[in-house]
Amino acid sequence: MAEQGDKGKGGKGSEKKDGMVTEITPQSEDFSRWYLDVVRRAELADYTPVKGCMAIRPYGYAIWELIEHALDARFKATGHVNAYFPLFIPEKLLMREAEHVEGFAPQVAWVTRGGDEELDERLAIRPTSEVIIGTMYSKWIKSWRDLPVLINQWANVVRWEKVTRPFLRTTEFLWQEGHTAHETEAEAQEETMRILGIYKEFAETELAMPVIDGEKSESEKFAGASRTYSIEALMGDGRALQAGTSHNLGQNFAKAFEIQFQGRDKAMQHAWTTSWGVSTRLIGGVIMTHGDDSGLILPPRVAPYQVVIIPIPRGNWQETVLPKAKAIQADLAARGVRVMLDDRDAYTPGWKFAEWELRGVPLRLELGPKDIEKAQVMLARRDTREKLAMPLEGLPDGVVRLLDDIQQSLYNRALRFREEHTQRVGSYDEFKAVMDGRPGFVIAGWCGSAGCEAQIKAETQATLRNIPFDSRGSDARSGPADSPESSARSGQGGGVCVKCGRPSVGDAWFAKAY
Amino acid sequence: MAEQGDKGKGGKGSEKKDGMVTEITPQSEDFSRWYLDVVRRAELADYTPVKGCMAIRPYGYAIWELIEHALDARFKATGHVNAYFPLFIPEKLLMREAEHVEGFAPQVAWVTRGGDEELDERLAIRPTSEVIIGTMYSKWIKSWRDLPVLINQWANVVRWEKVTRPFLRTTEFLWQEGHTAHETEAEAQEETMRILGIYKEFAETELAMPVIDGEKSESEKFAGASRTYSIEALMGDGRALQAGTSHNLGQNFAKAFEIQFQGRDKAMQHAWTTSWGVSTRLIGGVIMTHGDDSGLILPPRVAPYQVVIIPIPRGNWQETVLPKAKAIQADLAARGVRVMLDDRDAYTPGWKFAEWELRGVPLRLELGPKDIEKAQVMLARRDTREKLAMPLEGLPDGVVRLLDDIQQSLYNRALRFREEHTQRVGSYDEFKAVMDGRPGFVIAGWCGSAGCEAQIKAETQATLRNIPFDSRGSDARSGPADSPESSARSGQGGGVCVKCGRPSVGDAWFAKAY
Ligand SMILES: [Zn+2]
Ligand SMILES: [Zn+2]
Repeated sequence: MAEQGDKGKGGKGSEKKDGMVTEITPQSEDFSRWYLDVVRRAELADYTPVKGCMAIRPYGYAIWELIEHALDARFKATGHVNAYFPLFIPEKLLMREAEHVEGFAPQVAWVTRGGDEELDERLAIRPTSEVIIGTMYSKWIKSWRDLPVLINQWANVVRWEKVTRPFLRTTEFLWQEGHTAHETEAEAQEETMRILGIYKEFAETELAMPVIDGEKSESEKFAGASRTYSIEALMGDGRALQAGTSHNLGQNFAKAFEIQFQGRDKAMQHAWTTSWGVSTRLIGGVIMTHGDDSGLILPPRVAPYQVVIIPIPRGNWQETVLPKAKAIQADLAARGVRVMLDDRDAYTPGWKFAEWELRGVPLRLELGPKDIEKAQVMLARRDTREKLAMPLEGLPDGVVRLLDDIQQSLYNRALRFREEHTQRVGSYDEFKAVMDGRPGFVIAGWCGSAGCEAQIKAETQATLRNIPFDSRGSDARSGPADSPESSARSGQGGGVCVKCGRPSVGDAWFAKAY
Repeated sequence: MAEQGDKGKGGKGSEKKDGMVTEITPQSEDFSRWYLDVVRRAELADYTPVKGCMAIRPYGYAIWELIEHALDARFKATGHVNAYFPLFIPEKLLMREAEHVEGFAPQVAWVTRGGDEELDERLAIRPTSEVIIGTMYSKWIKSWRDLPVLINQWANVVRWEKVTRPFLRTTEFLWQEGHTAHETEAEAQEETMRILGIYKEFAETELAMPVIDGEKSESEKFAGASRTYSIEALMGDGRALQAGTSHNLGQNFAKAFEIQFQGRDKAMQHAWTTSWGVSTRLIGGVIMTHGDDSGLILPPRVAPYQVVIIPIPRGNWQETVLPKAKAIQADLAARGVRVMLDDRDAYTPGWKFAEWELRGVPLRLELGPKDIEKAQVMLARRDTREKLAMPLEGLPDGVVRLLDDIQQSLYNRALRFREEHTQRVGSYDEFKAVMDGRPGFVIAGWCGSAGCEAQIKAETQATLRNIPFDSRGSDARSGPADSPESSARSGQGGGVCVKCGRPSVGDAWFAKAY
């Protein structure tokens, strides 16, 4: 932020004006504090009088809208449709799938009173919607002709949390939850993997956030699922973030909620179902993947403003610079660029530079009388802080190219960071030494036992994030018919468990995680 | 539906196949039953095990998505941004604005337990968000420079209802709620009217639903508002539907929630706020404005499928007709038409005709071997049931023109219906006679007193829907500084109250309403 010091008054980023631009705790000093500072000072979200619930402010919500549109288009292109199901789940219904209720009951908020009446049966506020959607599917699905059912819901859910952090873990959050029903086990598995693939491609293309896709261990899987898959990202402090999950629910929910259909052979059978979701947590992932000590850095594809134009107020700038700035704004907008012209005259250019830097706008465009003389503008990249002049002639195309380059550079940088913070270890001593030292992913063989996994967690705080497909047999993506343990027993992957030395099911990725 | 009788097997609309196309109660027999039949059989929504809550099925939700996109674009074009606020409102906060809590408390669902703990303070599930948003605005607004704040939220809300009906009145529903804060009273009034104007234009353009815009009486206004304005539509059974409301909240909420700012004169003052909303109730409005005894009729602009292509399976149709049908589908889609090709071979054309008619698709495109020989398609309009041949050459443009015509025709038809069901009366005897006879709007002078309004309601079941602007003084849209009573006292509008004979504030529109 110092490099703009010569332009603003003050210009150290600590300049205060209406409390907007204030100092942000450096990442190296306290990453967690840095995160909270960025969230609040970039006006992404704010605390509310409701414990554990945040307000998503317009700038943060605009990021969510871009995420929503990008994902929704991918879901629709693969045959999914949206619908909406009730917020409430009657207690008895929630109790039907044993593992599911065991997993979620401790986190449920209960409605016990409606208007003037005490309710006969408590209503859970959905922590997730398998139960209520499964109940409806049992009404709607009668024949194999009704399958597959491919429904997604954009909704709020509530999970009572003791410790919360904006975007990463809040009592209420926004998400999408897909719920599909299929005729065969193979189709359900295919769907589970299709969605995981969409999540990975989406995270890497739109969020510039590289992720590892793989299968969760038995102890980390979704309550009630047969198999859970996840994408896992690495944050700037070396902690992992589970960024999306896709569950093959087998026939568990179909049996609990009687989702039955008449098959091609006329026999009644239970459907095979899946569910999958990503949430506003992704915004936390974007912040912690790309941000720096000056604040947020947004990948252009999810930046509410990709370019901010800041006119330099010299001389009669309102007659000279401003009209030109407006023309540039119109040209960029016509080219599909999301552009903001900050023509407020109550603020200095230096203050604006710092503010939009803090808010992570990928590209700043400065325009002053001298630039107009030279028929150019000055551009400053948020990611590299490089400044360059660009001729007005052909500006929109140049800006679009630059935005593409920023998007790609952010991805490359994050990937390099992950590679530098991922280490394969051969022994448990080495595992512990690496985990003690600097954070990041550790790759190690694992035997598939929950015991080894739990001991590793207790001794190192590292959890098993997932087992990537390429470390297992070539048929890993098609899904084993049984539980992960069965592939554990088969010793796929070749190596040995870093903890107990038994044959490993494949290379597992471990990390301390959010 | 009989006109397709010669094509389908059975073809009376009562043909059953997987329970999809079954008879719908005729409107004339029981409009309310007809409505429920259409909602369920067109798969717009379904009952759930949660009392008073519906599931919005994909076909119904697709209509909501079109409504959402059309409105959201209008809000953004007028400078509004979206955000998201908590679902929960702590009880003490809800209690702060006296009129507001009096209006909403009887309808609130209460969370009293989270996870394993009994809550110290109950949490209301938002019935509307003035309270929680007002609380945040008091943090965010410090100076006149922070104004206006123009925020909208797309969200679910809960109002505990005793009697519910899908879309029209449900315990949980989806809506948008705008909440704005302004520096001056005049700006707040201008915003209130701007939004009312957007609602009217949106309802008439997109939903083909003519509406009357005007001011609500004191007894019908939003709890806590200074003034409430509404748009009112007339349903096919002659009952009115309040389709959207826009409230000028004065400084009431700003005072209750301490939304204060330093003005240009450096003095602290309270902001002027507004709120406004429309909900999934609009879908009920569309159904009851346009539908007929064969089911739904959707205006093209909010139809999930504007055209359904039904190939006629003669001879080797899969090699001849189907490829051509797919080509037409692609051409129409490229032209921006939402088109569905129903190539399921488990169903007959006759069954498909009835099904898509029931689902209200504006235009059916039939294509058989003979049509291909003649290089044409057969088109059937859902609104007029006219059938016409159209050449393949230039088909997309022809279809777009036809869809525009259907949109306009539906609007014209609904407007004609309203005009035929609106009557001005000069005496209270005449008022009662008309209300006893056939339903619809009755226009009559009103003195502005709640007493006359209540008596009229008790004796005729008709409620005062609103007082349109054009029946009042020319400055009606700018909003009186005081309550409606003040304009009542001034005797604007010229006439006399239909009930008591005192000078009238203007012509009020009365109707039995949903
Ligand atoms: Zn082991
Ligand atoms: Zn009167």
